[in-house]
Amino acid sequence: MAKSKSRKQAAAEPAWRGIIPPLVTPLAGRDELDVPGLGRLLDHVLAGGVRGLFVLGSTGEAPSLSYRLRRELVERVCDRVAGRVPVLVGITDTSFVESVNLTEHSKKAGAAAAVLAPPFYFPAGQPELLEYIHHLAPELPLPLFLYNMPSYTKLFFEPDTVRAAAELPNVVGLKDSSGNMGYFHRLQALFADRPDFALLVGPEELLVESVLSGGHGGVCGGANLCPELYVEAYEAARAGDLPRARELHRRIMAIAGSVYAVGRHGSSYLKGLKCALSLKGICSDFMAEPFHHFREPERERVRAALAKLGIL
Amino acid sequence: MAKSKSRKQAAAEPAWRGIIPPLVTPLAGRDELDVPGLGRLLDHVLAGGVRGLFVLGSTGEAPSLSYRLRRELVERVCDRVAGRVPVLVGITDTSFVESVNLTEHSKKAGAAAAVLAPPFYFPAGQPELLEYIHHLAPELPLPLFLYNMPSYTKLFFEPDTVRAAAELPNVVGLKDSSGNMGYFHRLQALFADRPDFALLVGPEELLVESVLSGGHGGVCGGANLCPELYVEAYEAARAGDLPRARELHRRIMAIAGSVYAVGRHGSSYLKGLKCALSLKGICSDFMAEPFHHFREPERERVRAALAKLGIL
Amino acid sequence: MAKSKSRKQAAAEPAWRGIIPPLVTPLAGRDELDVPGLGRLLDHVLAGGVRGLFVLGSTGEAPSLSYRLRRELVERVCDRVAGRVPVLVGITDTSFVESVNLTEHSKKAGAAAAVLAPPFYFPAGQPELLEYIHHLAPELPLPLFLYNMPSYTKLFFEPDTVRAAAELPNVVGLKDSSGNMGYFHRLQALFADRPDFALLVGPEELLVESVLSGGHGGVCGGANLCPELYVEAYEAARAGDLPRARELHRRIMAIAGSVYAVGRHGSSYLKGLKCALSLKGICSDFMAEPFHHFREPERERVRAALAKLGIL
Amino acid sequence: MAKSKSRKQAAAEPAWRGIIPPLVTPLAGRDELDVPGLGRLLDHVLAGGVRGLFVLGSTGEAPSLSYRLRRELVERVCDRVAGRVPVLVGITDTSFVESVNLTEHSKKAGAAAAVLAPPFYFPAGQPELLEYIHHLAPELPLPLFLYNMPSYTKLFFEPDTVRAAAELPNVVGLKDSSGNMGYFHRLQALFADRPDFALLVGPEELLVESVLSGGHGGVCGGANLCPELYVEAYEAARAGDLPRARELHRRIMAIAGSVYAVGRHGSSYLKGLKCALSLKGICSDFMAEPFHHFREPERERVRAALAKLGIL
Repeated sequence: MAKSKSRKQAAAEPAWRGIIPPLVTPLAGRDELDVPGLGRLLDHVLAGGVRGLFVLGSTGEAPSLSYRLRRELVERVCDRVAGRVPVLVGITDTSFVESVNLTEHSKKAGAAAAVLAPPFYFPAGQPELLEYIHHLAPELPLPLFLYNMPSYTKLFFEPDTVRAAAELPNVVGLKDSSGNMGYFHRLQALFADRPDFALLVGPEELLVESVLSGGHGGVCGGANLCPELYVEAYEAARAGDLPRARELHRRIMAIAGSVYAVGRHGSSYLKGLKCALSLKGICSDFMAEPFHHFREPERERVRAALAKLGIL
Repeated sequence: MAKSKSRKQAAAEPAWRGIIPPLVTPLAGRDELDVPGLGRLLDHVLAGGVRGLFVLGSTGEAPSLSYRLRRELVERVCDRVAGRVPVLVGITDTSFVESVNLTEHSKKAGAAAAVLAPPFYFPAGQPELLEYIHHLAPELPLPLFLYNMPSYTKLFFEPDTVRAAAELPNVVGLKDSSGNMGYFHRLQALFADRPDFALLVGPEELLVESVLSGGHGGVCGGANLCPELYVEAYEAARAGDLPRARELHRRIMAIAGSVYAVGRHGSSYLKGLKCALSLKGICSDFMAEPFHHFREPERERVRAALAKLGIL
Repeated sequence: MAKSKSRKQAAAEPAWRGIIPPLVTPLAGRDELDVPGLGRLLDHVLAGGVRGLFVLGSTGEAPSLSYRLRRELVERVCDRVAGRVPVLVGITDTSFVESVNLTEHSKKAGAAAAVLAPPFYFPAGQPELLEYIHHLAPELPLPLFLYNMPSYTKLFFEPDTVRAAAELPNVVGLKDSSGNMGYFHRLQALFADRPDFALLVGPEELLVESVLSGGHGGVCGGANLCPELYVEAYEAARAGDLPRARELHRRIMAIAGSVYAVGRHGSSYLKGLKCALSLKGICSDFMAEPFHHFREPERERVRAALAKLGIL
Repeated sequence: MAKSKSRKQAAAEPAWRGIIPPLVTPLAGRDELDVPGLGRLLDHVLAGGVRGLFVLGSTGEAPSLSYRLRRELVERVCDRVAGRVPVLVGITDTSFVESVNLTEHSKKAGAAAAVLAPPFYFPAGQPELLEYIHHLAPELPLPLFLYNMPSYTKLFFEPDTVRAAAELPNVVGLKDSSGNMGYFHRLQALFADRPDFALLVGPEELLVESVLSGGHGGVCGGANLCPELYVEAYEAARAGDLPRARELHRRIMAIAGSVYAVGRHGSSYLKGLKCALSLKGICSDFMAEPFHHFREPERERVRAALAKLGIL
């Protein structure tokens, strides 16, 4: 009975809620997946209760991978996940045609949605960006998430652009990685009448507050490492359990302030996360160029941080 | 006799001098070359006396094209040029593996060099950028030009990085599109003992002064339209003919101030250039997403500008 | 009895908590205060239950005012407030000597603290900024707040710089107007052992979440207009009353999304706020150059927004 | 006869031509001029053949000085120069009223012109900037130069804004410190019919090329140290003597590449220049906060650079 009720609730609840980790891409070499590592990573993350998986995002080093490897990754992930949770695939590309190609491949592989940041070489204006979405979305055989990532793409999805794009039938939500909660709140106000349009937050430091304010979930990199922590933080915030949410927020900040803070800025988050996964025995820390895994001194600092946090 | 002398001169002079237009990519559709237009464009440009061709640069909309079309373009250009001038191919990519793949393809097609801007999604630090060049250059079967394009890549090739990269045997020059002549002069000072290392300038507004100061040439977009103007400006500056160089500089500024100044900033240069080529009957003005060709009102303004300049 | 208890509580609670509005500077002309308007504004704001007043901040157009007028404003405000709440004075200046001069003047006038953003002409490095604070703070006869305002000063107070500066005996807190809650949370983690160090947030869109996460209050421009709204939002968040906090947050967002969203970006917040105060009959909307008050069409839009919000 | 003709020519030649050094402000302490050093500096610079002096610019650390000291400096410089060359005074300020005040003071002291960069705290739009100039210029009792310095002010003087501002009767020229020669050439094209409007360049690395292209002179910091070098470079470029201009350009680059390249970026130019002046025995190297003079290790590097350059 309980089961059937829970199933009903799930049906009633809009899709795209909760923690959807941006999956790290385990690599065995420059153009080779760490297949066993990928399997372990998927098992680990799914066991943590996540509600979806986002592959080929920034955390997945997508732009640094060959197209061949991207396709292989989508296939292997969809295969292993086998429908247990929806798989979202990053299709961000400077080339319109390649975005379409990858979406078609992903659809065939069994993916549930595509995720798109603006084309990131030429700096387009907002009307050009909106026209681009208007041309692209209808070509895609999957629901589409927009992905606001201005520090990497040089271009904001302005609120009016998002609202206009959301009129397209397969545009179903937005992931905001700007780190700008004022922007996120403006979107929330703009979509107050559209609870079906999912508003997810990228930076895990903002997960709790975004959910407290009515946000729908988080695409948190740390959920590769400790999926249950982010899932619990989401649930606590959603339930309005402030003391619990604050305590979990403090743990999330402790990870960000140590595991991601080793080494040079910019790449330190990615290097720290892959290093931690390697130290936990989950997958290789090989990184795609232009980055490289931490050497022993930095690795030692990540190990100490994990030990102190009780993660190792 | 004359031929043999000319061959000797060519041998004595360092390579990579003069005007090397960044070729516009004539398109018939989203994933289709305008093949007749490409032929006419090549004939037009070669007739103007250029010393090389640079395909798949920013002006060539390379990041917006599918990989299939990029390979086709390289093949067709090399085929048609048939060794009359060296063909340089832009291999800038966020993916190391794709840069290698395209270089190998280009080598087979008959290209003479590769041109590389920094990977442009993740903001890398200078040591990471240098390490990347150190790993990539040896994998490439062609001489390599660096391409400084900070407004699009978010990353400068700092002078010390360039100097260190230039120690690699196949790194042969740099094209600077920063628009910052102070930077260009710092490079010139740093390479005063390396006349073999080619220093070319991107923005055509800076062609004359860069050559007057000892620069080796220009990768000028306008040379798609009026190749002989840029070739003459280069020759005048190189010969120290100041009155002539100034007059030609004024004509170059007049093009920049009219043909490239219609419509919205950012894309107006590219749109204006393709529109002008179409008005001259050379090739289609179809553009790759996220851009689109000028509609009639803007087209009319470009037409008027060309008429006033005596180009039409 | 009740009075004495309340006094004790106040003594037990660390200082600098709650809503401290950044006071608008009512102007009658380019170098003339709107003295009656200032009186009405102070009465209005104090009646709303604010816990302090911040004069000569960005909202107060401080950098645009003459030094004579700045001194007059400090005197008049301290005089009228007469110790009811502490008055904080913005002393941000590109000139060290002028910052000292204004602080000495403010101390004599009865101000309670000084507020300092980095000197904003030359872009200093963090070590230079810290050395500057180390030299300046001991010269100041008042407690000092740091003011993080990178969009105007081009310079972040990096967390390590703040932590080091906080070792100085009169550095008592920081106001963050970066809009970057990840930064704010890093500061909170860094000062977890220093509850005496006040962490206030600038952008009112972030008031509720910053207080929910343990922040100490807000320097909210909108509190010039509706002080009680921000005071209630602060109290609700502090008490953990989520439904009430959310409702008040929505009202705050509605002001930001209408009153501050008329006219050109950048100055639209300031122009909208002064226009609204003028429409409410509180003070003049004259602005210091380089800005100017809204003309009738924009004024009409602000009037309509206020009417819809029930503020007029 | 020759004399009278030359006088006529001088009369015929528009004003504001040649090298106008941005004078370093010699300081004996935080709020104290190094008066003997100032005298020696003025004698040194005037002996080098400069055509004017610009005090209270960025190189003069103007924004870091107290207003009292700024006024004293203007008085002392005008007094000592005694009309031998025109004195231009930087009046850039975030406060309109203070800009007017300082201009009036400068006029009384005998200054010849005022120099104005945009107000640099609030980021104004171009229409706001133009309106500001339209209000300010008529209040000023001196001819006015615009000063384009976007890296410090966050705001470009867009070409159309400059052209509109130049319609005001006392707006007589522009100094461009953007380092962007494309911008400078656009201004030159826009003012082709206004040879009376002076276009001067800031960065000394660009002096030669700007004059070769028709620019009117340079506001070169290095002219504090070696005035005759910059005067000769200007004369050579103006006369079209390319070999000589190139040689002098190389010497200018050698100074920039060594004396200004010690220590941290940003402040290294100013610190190196003041250090060099101190090593030559001209004036103190005391700097206004937030900067500080070089300590012995950096000082030693500057000494070595000067020795190698033959300046010491």
